[in-house]
Formats: sequence, C-alpha cells, structure tokens
Amino acid sequence: MNFDGIVPTADPALEAWIRRRLDSLTKPPGSLGRMESLALRLGLIQGTAIPSIGRKAMLIFCADHGVVEEGVSAYPGEVTRQMVANFQAGGAAINVLCRHYGIEPVVVDMGVGRPTRNSARESAMTRDEAERAIEAGMARADTAEILGAGEMGIGNTTAAAALLSAFSGLAPDETAGRGTGLDAEGVARKAGVIRRMLALHRPDPADAIGVLASLGGYEIAAITGLILGAALRRRVVVLDGFISCSAALVARALAPASLDYVIYSHRSAEQGHRRMLEFLNAQTLFDLDMRLGEGTGAALAINLLEAAVKLYREMATFESAGVSAI
Amino acid sequence: MNFDGIVPTADPALEAWIRRRLDSLTKPPGSLGRMESLALRLGLIQGTAIPSIGRKAMLIFCADHGVVEEGVSAYPGEVTRQMVANFQAGGAAINVLCRHYGIEPVVVDMGVGRPTRNSARESAMTRDEAERAIEAGMARADTAEILGAGEMGIGNTTAAAALLSAFSGLAPDETAGRGTGLDAEGVARKAGVIRRMLALHRPDPADAIGVLASLGGYEIAAITGLILGAALRRRVVVLDGFISCSAALVARALAPASLDYVIYSHRSAEQGHRRMLEFLNAQTLFDLDMRLGEGTGAALAINLLEAAVKLYREMATFESAGVSAI
Repeated sequence: MNFDGIVPTADPALEAWIRRRLDSLTKPPGSLGRMESLALRLGLIQGTAIPSIGRKAMLIFCADHGVVEEGVSAYPGEVTRQMVANFQAGGAAINVLCRHYGIEPVVVDMGVGRPTRNSARESAMTRDEAERAIEAGMARADTAEILGAGEMGIGNTTAAAALLSAFSGLAPDETAGRGTGLDAEGVARKAGVIRRMLALHRPDPADAIGVLASLGGYEIAAITGLILGAALRRRVVVLDGFISCSAALVARALAPASLDYVIYSHRSAEQGHRRMLEFLNAQTLFDLDMRLGEGTGAALAINLLEAAVKLYREMATFESAGVSAI
Repeated sequence: MNFDGIVPTADPALEAWIRRRLDSLTKPPGSLGRMESLALRLGLIQGTAIPSIGRKAMLIFCADHGVVEEGVSAYPGEVTRQMVANFQAGGAAINVLCRHYGIEPVVVDMGVGRPTRNSARESAMTRDEAERAIEAGMARADTAEILGAGEMGIGNTTAAAALLSAFSGLAPDETAGRGTGLDAEGVARKAGVIRRMLALHRPDPADAIGVLASLGGYEIAAITGLILGAALRRRVVVLDGFISCSAALVARALAPASLDYVIYSHRSAEQGHRRMLEFLNAQTLFDLDMRLGEGTGAALAINLLEAAVKLYREMATFESAGVSAI
C-alpha cells in the first residue's frame, strides 16, 4: 500500500490569511477560542481561505470479534447484529444525534456475524484481510465532504487496547478499561487476555499492517482506511472515542501526515483513552464523560465544526458593522 | 423582594423514574455521561418524566458602565451601542449561533448610552434602580421555555470581578482578568480599580441587593432577575460565562434554590471564571477557551441540552429494539 499522495496541511500563507480574517470579525481577537482553531483547521485541510461544510456523513463500521470467546465483554457477541438492526430502524443514540445535526448515518457491515479469529489464539486477520478492510474504508471517503468515524463491535475495546499496548509499549493494565461495563474483575481478566495476545503475536510497531492484522478488527481497519482515504482527498475525518482513535495509531504508522486531516472529538470515559490521546499528542474538544461509541462524540463535534465554519463565514467584520476595533 | 415561591427541584421518585428510563435505552447504563445528567436535570426542573424543549430564546441584556471612565477596558464605551446595532443587523457571533441552533435572539436594552454611575467613585445604581432592573429581567422569563442568558456591556468584567470579590472575599488580583484583551499592565490597573471600589463601598455579602447596586450593572441585575423569574416558573436558564455567572452569585444570595434551575455552559478563558465556578460549586459542560460573552457559550449548551432531551425521548429501549440487555 502506498500513501505518497498524503501531504501535510501546513500552508503558512493560507494560515496567515485565515488568521487575518478571524481577527477582522466583530469580536476581541482570539475570543472564540477553539472555535477559531476549528475554522482554521478546516481551511488548511480543504486548502481554501473559505472552508465549507457540504454533506455530512457518519460512517458506522460494524464488525464482530473472535476474541469475545475469552469473556472480554459485558454483552454477548450477538448484540453487534442486534444493534445494527437498531441503527437501521433509527432507534440508536447515533441515529438521534444524526437526525438532530443533519448528518447522514451510513451503516457499513465489515463483518457482522463473520467475526475475526480469536486473537488470543491466532491472528485476528490475515494481512490480506486487513489490507482489504483498509481499502474498503478508503473507498468510503467519497461519501461526503465531512466524514465522521463511528463503530459498533462487541469486543472491540479489547482490540483497541491491544493496539495501544502494541504501538506505545504501555502495559495492558494501563490500556484495558471497563468497555461497555465490566467490573474490576472483568477488567483484570481483559488485561490478562491482552497480555496473552501480545505474548503470542509479539507485534512489531514498525509493521503496522502486521500489528493491525494480529490484534485488530475489521471496523478498526476500515476506520484506518477512512482516515487515509480522507487525507488523500483533503477531507476532514472527525474521530469518536477509544476505538476510532486506535485506528489513528495505525494510520499514523502508515502515513504520519494523515493525522493532519483528523479532528479528535471527545475524551471518552474509557480509561485507556486518555493515554491513547497523550500518545497521539491529540487535543480533544470536549469531555462529557461519554463512552458509548457508535460515533456519538463525533456527531457532537461535527456540529461544533459546522458552527465554527458558520461563525467564520457569516460574522460581520469591524469595518462592515461600523464597530470600533482595537 | 420575596422569592418564597422558588422551591428546590429535588424529587426522589421522579429522579428514580427518569433514571430507570435512561437505563432502559439501548446503550450501556450511564454511557452517555453528562448527556444523561442533562436530561435528568431538565426533567427535575420541569417536574416531568418526559422533559421537552419548546421555544428557545437567548436574552442578550445590554448596558453601559460608568466605571469605563477608569480605563478598565481595551475597547471604548461606545462599542456597547455599536454591538447592539450589530446584534440587530444579525452580524454578531451570537446571531450566527442562534440561527444555527434555532434560538431566538432577544436584545434587551438595559441602559445602552445611559450608563451606571462610576462605581469607583459612587454607587453604580441606587437600590431602587437595581431592584427595577432585577424585575425587568424576571419579566423576561416568559420569553420561551428554554432561556439563555447573554450580555454585552463594555466594562462589565470589572463589575463581575468586583461582585466575585465582594461575595467570596477573593482579592481583586485573583478575580480581575484580561476581559476583551487587556495586557498585564491593564489587568493590574483593573485590579486596582476593584480594590478602590471595595474600599469605598465595603460591600456586605448578607445584603445582596446592596452589593449589586454598589458594584454591579443593569445587565447583571437583569440576569439575576432572569434566574429568579425562571425558577419561579420552573424553567431552565442556561448561563454563559463570567458575567452571567456573576448574576448567579446575587441570585444565590437572594434565593439559594434558584440555582437548581441553572445550567452552566462553559468555562471561559477569563481567569476569574474558574474561581467563580468553584465558589458557586458549579460544573460546566465544556471548555473551548472562549471568552466572548453575548451568550455564545450558552447557545452551544442549549444545543447540547436539546440533543440530550432528544436522546432521552427518541432512543429505542432494549425491549422495543430486541437488543440483549445485561
């Protein structure tokens, strides 16, 4: 796989132009804080002085995980399929938020009922399977101008925590969390499973596809591809929480500049997410103690991004409004 | 003034009912975090198991301050009037956010061009003027079901910081901040002005109207009234940043239960706001490093409240969706 077409977003001349416009708007300079940064980020991503929103889609990549055999989740594996039906019927949290914010929810079946192999016993995917799942995610970067990354997959916090341990070297005790609602004993068991996964596969961070194939899942591979595909097309990807950020670990290893196209929405209550964000050197927009996944945090962030772009495009300037500037 | 009609929102039976419904929705219990708390809060405020949003209004109380004579703001006093014209033309940040979120902006002239007296030399308002401004704010609690508190008034961070010092005992060095953009020297001068205000008036926290009259402003008095009026009608008030929270100090002193009806939106970048929130024992929803005022943070929070209510009302239950519960 070749990602030479992915270029950093830095453009000092464009950035200076956007900052001048931000400072011409009727507000004290910098007083809209992170909302100003968001408008600037999207301008640099889109390579334009006047960024725009266009269509908004939430890609909800769904997949099952063989590792649920090890008792790593509070819910049975069939909940993945049941929640897919809930997404299709419009009854899940992400459906409500997508309706509220005018985001199109797109459910992508990456392997519901066709789980990965049990990564505590063998490689979750072959390299070829992992690459095909990445390509499937890349193809979805065509869906809309603004891309949200959501997911559903019982067992996938175990895969995400294992990826974090593999790339960062952090011990499983520091990366495994409660997921959908494990108690302390369940978290300890999950950390033990991750230790076994790492001992079995001895993942090499320099071989990102190998790490993903042995420990990951189809939905995480697809989100990795969505990030890479978006970067190739100069589109923004708004990540959700622990799972979609684990895909950023893989994307960074494959093409570091791809993360210039990523906006991190929220810090999830899942304990490993804080460490993952530190390892990614990532700053989130908010922390509402959410830990649902599906793209729920990303939906809120897409709305903030839209508000930021509207502020940038629609506010009067000091000159046009006849307000005294400093 | 008598606020005996303001009652605490606590209702253990209603709270238990709402929590049971939250746990019946298709998500791990508690996994929507603060969004679940928001739905619960609004249910308790409205006294109903199924809270609703209805009309949303942002009250933008505007007033001038005599204390600007002391050089406490980076902007000249006439900017208040110029920004009111900008609000009326739809070009300010709060207009953009209100359009985006379907909130009606309501500009309330509390004394534009008719400033309070210079509180560094005499009482900003008489007690009677302060009470009439509170009553004007109370009357605005009829405007809509969901009330946002915004403001505009060059000089009003000085008034808010002085109120915080008066009620909390914190030194002006800890409550004065950069406002619309003072440098370090300007902040030191502003703190000095607040020290003079406190030395002159010797405010007594037990006499909240007296404190407000001597140090405050008409817009802060009106927001105090909005909080009290909303509490009397069992309506929610979403506060913005440093200025509107200073009104909460006065409202708490007049009727402690009135703050049960308040939602704090964001932590502003104004340095005194963190201390003010601690003194109010208040938890905000987000921190986007904003410090503009006008109600901009409150507008974002009203939208989160609306999203929370929709999640609560529209999500499928485990039973209705046929999803396995734990």
